[in-house]
Amino acid sequence: MSRSPVSRRDFLKVAGVAGAGLTVGACRNASAIPAEATRAAAPPTPTKEPTATATDTPAPLTPTSEPTATPAPVAQAETHTAADMAAASPAQAGNAWEEMDRMHEEGVKIFLDGIDPTNGFWGTPLEYREEDGVKIFEMTCQEVDWEVEPGKTVPAMTYNGIVPGPEIRVTEGDTVRIIVHNEMSQSTGVHWHGVIVPNNMDGVPFITQPPIRPGETFVYEFTTRNSGSHMYHSHHNALEQVSKGMIGAFIIEPADKSKEPAYDADYVLIMNDVGIGLTLNGKSFPYTQPIVAKLGDTFRVRYMNEGVMIHPMHLHGLEQLVIAKDGWPLPQPYYCDTVNVAPGERYDVIVKAHTPGAWAFHCHILSHAESAHGMFGMVTAVVVQE
Amino acid sequence: MSRSPVSRRDFLKVAGVAGAGLTVGACRNASAIPAEATRAAAPPTPTKEPTATATDTPAPLTPTSEPTATPAPVAQAETHTAADMAAASPAQAGNAWEEMDRMHEEGVKIFLDGIDPTNGFWGTPLEYREEDGVKIFEMTCQEVDWEVEPGKTVPAMTYNGIVPGPEIRVTEGDTVRIIVHNEMSQSTGVHWHGVIVPNNMDGVPFITQPPIRPGETFVYEFTTRNSGSHMYHSHHNALEQVSKGMIGAFIIEPADKSKEPAYDADYVLIMNDVGIGLTLNGKSFPYTQPIVAKLGDTFRVRYMNEGVMIHPMHLHGLEQLVIAKDGWPLPQPYYCDTVNVAPGERYDVIVKAHTPGAWAFHCHILSHAESAHGMFGMVTAVVVQE
Amino acid sequence: MSRSPVSRRDFLKVAGVAGAGLTVGACRNASAIPAEATRAAAPPTPTKEPTATATDTPAPLTPTSEPTATPAPVAQAETHTAADMAAASPAQAGNAWEEMDRMHEEGVKIFLDGIDPTNGFWGTPLEYREEDGVKIFEMTCQEVDWEVEPGKTVPAMTYNGIVPGPEIRVTEGDTVRIIVHNEMSQSTGVHWHGVIVPNNMDGVPFITQPPIRPGETFVYEFTTRNSGSHMYHSHHNALEQVSKGMIGAFIIEPADKSKEPAYDADYVLIMNDVGIGLTLNGKSFPYTQPIVAKLGDTFRVRYMNEGVMIHPMHLHGLEQLVIAKDGWPLPQPYYCDTVNVAPGERYDVIVKAHTPGAWAFHCHILSHAESAHGMFGMVTAVVVQE
Repeated sequence: MSRSPVSRRDFLKVAGVAGAGLTVGACRNASAIPAEATRAAAPPTPTKEPTATATDTPAPLTPTSEPTATPAPVAQAETHTAADMAAASPAQAGNAWEEMDRMHEEGVKIFLDGIDPTNGFWGTPLEYREEDGVKIFEMTCQEVDWEVEPGKTVPAMTYNGIVPGPEIRVTEGDTVRIIVHNEMSQSTGVHWHGVIVPNNMDGVPFITQPPIRPGETFVYEFTTRNSGSHMYHSHHNALEQVSKGMIGAFIIEPADKSKEPAYDADYVLIMNDVGIGLTLNGKSFPYTQPIVAKLGDTFRVRYMNEGVMIHPMHLHGLEQLVIAKDGWPLPQPYYCDTVNVAPGERYDVIVKAHTPGAWAFHCHILSHAESAHGMFGMVTAVVVQE
Repeated sequence: MSRSPVSRRDFLKVAGVAGAGLTVGACRNASAIPAEATRAAAPPTPTKEPTATATDTPAPLTPTSEPTATPAPVAQAETHTAADMAAASPAQAGNAWEEMDRMHEEGVKIFLDGIDPTNGFWGTPLEYREEDGVKIFEMTCQEVDWEVEPGKTVPAMTYNGIVPGPEIRVTEGDTVRIIVHNEMSQSTGVHWHGVIVPNNMDGVPFITQPPIRPGETFVYEFTTRNSGSHMYHSHHNALEQVSKGMIGAFIIEPADKSKEPAYDADYVLIMNDVGIGLTLNGKSFPYTQPIVAKLGDTFRVRYMNEGVMIHPMHLHGLEQLVIAKDGWPLPQPYYCDTVNVAPGERYDVIVKAHTPGAWAFHCHILSHAESAHGMFGMVTAVVVQE
Repeated sequence: MSRSPVSRRDFLKVAGVAGAGLTVGACRNASAIPAEATRAAAPPTPTKEPTATATDTPAPLTPTSEPTATPAPVAQAETHTAADMAAASPAQAGNAWEEMDRMHEEGVKIFLDGIDPTNGFWGTPLEYREEDGVKIFEMTCQEVDWEVEPGKTVPAMTYNGIVPGPEIRVTEGDTVRIIVHNEMSQSTGVHWHGVIVPNNMDGVPFITQPPIRPGETFVYEFTTRNSGSHMYHSHHNALEQVSKGMIGAFIIEPADKSKEPAYDADYVLIMNDVGIGLTLNGKSFPYTQPIVAKLGDTFRVRYMNEGVMIHPMHLHGLEQLVIAKDGWPLPQPYYCDTVNVAPGERYDVIVKAHTPGAWAFHCHILSHAESAHGMFGMVTAVVVQE
């Protein structure tokens, strides 16, 4: 098995969260926050600089929501289209704000109700067989209809019928053979983005190999040398093929893990935009899945941008320690809350789940994350359970 | 008072500059540079690597502007529209270049003539009262018409009627209570971007709290733990609300300032784009304000991007030492002249005012800063006075 | 001569490459890779962490291209337009994929056949004369038709008739005098982007000098103080003038080179986009030129973004060590494979040519690099010769 058992174990905890407190009440005054998070929060322990006074005095939590007026009368109750809502000025649109709130709430409710550790959002390992010390993987390039969200299916170009393609995870020094079948109606080639390979394994048709034509098979084989968070994707008619889904993670674990940071779970987050739309791991909010962590645990996120736009990923409430860029360890990790990932870049971060609750986690280009209809696109969450 | 007295003191020096030499002469050969800057410039003292030969030999300053020909005849004198100017090819457009120059000059003249330390461009502190050791702030969400520049008023959504909203500045370990009244015609929620808070204070409607509906009040309360340059903004219908102005600085001074760099003044620069247009601190050039510094002084700039585009901020003549990202001190500060700030990011820089004069300071995406009509949008300056 | 002899020497090796194995065969099964690279590749020596097992076991290179089916019949043979190709769905477009492949191959063939060390792609030094210890340069601003690629000529605004303008390269501490003649039909001004200068030499019309009107000459003079990879460009009507080509490199070698990394060749790569189109050093693929390096050699690339968009430059197969930003040495260099360069930024990287072959090198915003017609725009390559 190429996938770390740690993240699998972690998935199993989610059911408890969904059952415990993450359903959204029908009453508008009810908060969607987990029951346990409404108690006085445990003092967070930011890893930057311990400050005795700050951590010794947890904030009293006394939110008050005091309705003081009844706003505009309800004149019309039909559902508005997105265009209507965006255009609606307050004066024109009677109860537009109530409809807007309803739609915002609906999205969050779908997201929280839909937590499902089995749906494959956090990656599908590509199985392999081993022969003579070579790990042998097999992939088929296929055109499929991909469901970005229920009711929104897009024509996709894929590895093994899924977006992103299955995750390849090996150890530095492993020799891999990857057999690629092209069942699509156009040629392709697979580039191992970030992986140091011999030139004729680099996957650029007409420069390092002939294209893999429809119906053909090409075999890539190389010994992995540089550990880190890498990617694989098409390098032929790539604007179309990559945008439409021919993307996947190629993770090389270091042979010597003694220099790796410790963490309890490991997540890959692949961004895409123009082809299949604004997505995280091939899905659009509210049909993305959260990271679920136990209070005090630490997790790693591997950002990979396969789109054509930058995506500055902002995590609420929990700082991110950036430890690697493009798979290469940073000599000097640094903290932040927003990681700006450009096309082709990868960043690895470590997050300590020091404060319980449901933390929004999204691209901070707001047009990639929220409309008058509520959050959409490149949005997910980190749920920290006590 | 939550605002540092240092920057106030600094503002007072501006009048002298405006009076001394910063007015643009009518004669086209007259330079707009301050009189003192036309003398042999003092050798700059770049903080990188002192180089004896470079600093010991100030450059002789002998610019010569030698008109050698009279260009194209003046055929038409009416004012061109922006579209006209952009499209005008030299052959077609008789005196287009003279009109272009006139517009360029006019903008600079308005900017320099308009230096006014009292106009609030560099921030309005949010006053507070203290009860039982809690600093209590109050803000009202309001829809107003906001004047981006004289004659250009846009429908804005604001905190306390201004864009950006008033600056909150506290000290690490302070407990704050922020009472938010919503007088707008749609719901809202306030997210304390970058501030570590208990989950139910995070400001994301339907995830961590109910929305603050029109007419309602919500009370946020938490103890600040992570110092740095943070922000607050709407997290409900945020593309519209943030773009239209629901943005502000939330600065947490460190409890232990001994590790802070020394500086004489402190400036917050908030970028915005799609909603109210390309603006710095809610204003468009030439109606922005410069930073005015005394030769030899050091100042801090806290960049905050609340727009949906990157804004690489380029400062002429004076290098920037980047000391923090998203409020977190960088373990290894670095020098540069262009700081690329993505949406949601903040960067803190330290600048030594080592060379006198008026230095352009602008977003280097040129379509955010200059047209055929001259500079506009995300442009300001640093004026270093001898 | 202001240009390092090292890069000239390097250019001379290219002829051998072009002659040896870089021509693309007519047979579709023939690879474009150099003959020597199809042998078992020499083990790469990544500079990060030597891994004995990885480097001792070169991967066996056994690609197999096995056509197993004949795809869609050929119904139409005429050349498609770009729009046709982009829109062509496989079902609609009979032999569209074969035509697509043909166009992809054609571009690569033009690129490889066109390797020409004499064509000026990698820069034209601006010659100077020396008087009384001052290095005197002369430039003329000219409107010309610039050939981005054969058959695609755009109206450009230039220094000395070329895009980018000629490279200025001096040594820290040098006093330079740059005489700028304006022969264009509009005014201009030259900003020395990143170079620390006295204010009245900063090149911003109406702020630091009068504009240089058509027919006029302006003389800039200053002593260089901060070494590094800087730029010069127009700062008047700059969106038009810079976009259309008024850009160039201004490189200041450090007076004390003992702290510089060692390298065998030095390349400047200037990006541009909206005015003359998506270009590297003023040319669009396949009319760009590769970097040609000898196996084991080290080269430096100085990225300079003069466009209005980010350009994350991805190099295949060879890691990049980022050593400087905006001309300032980074206190802590870091490895990566994709350098995201924002407008106005410069990054210097060092690359070790540790693996032979032709490595694609391109902006990873795929819409800047590839269409259904094949690669175009911001694409070049690094060719490592054994």
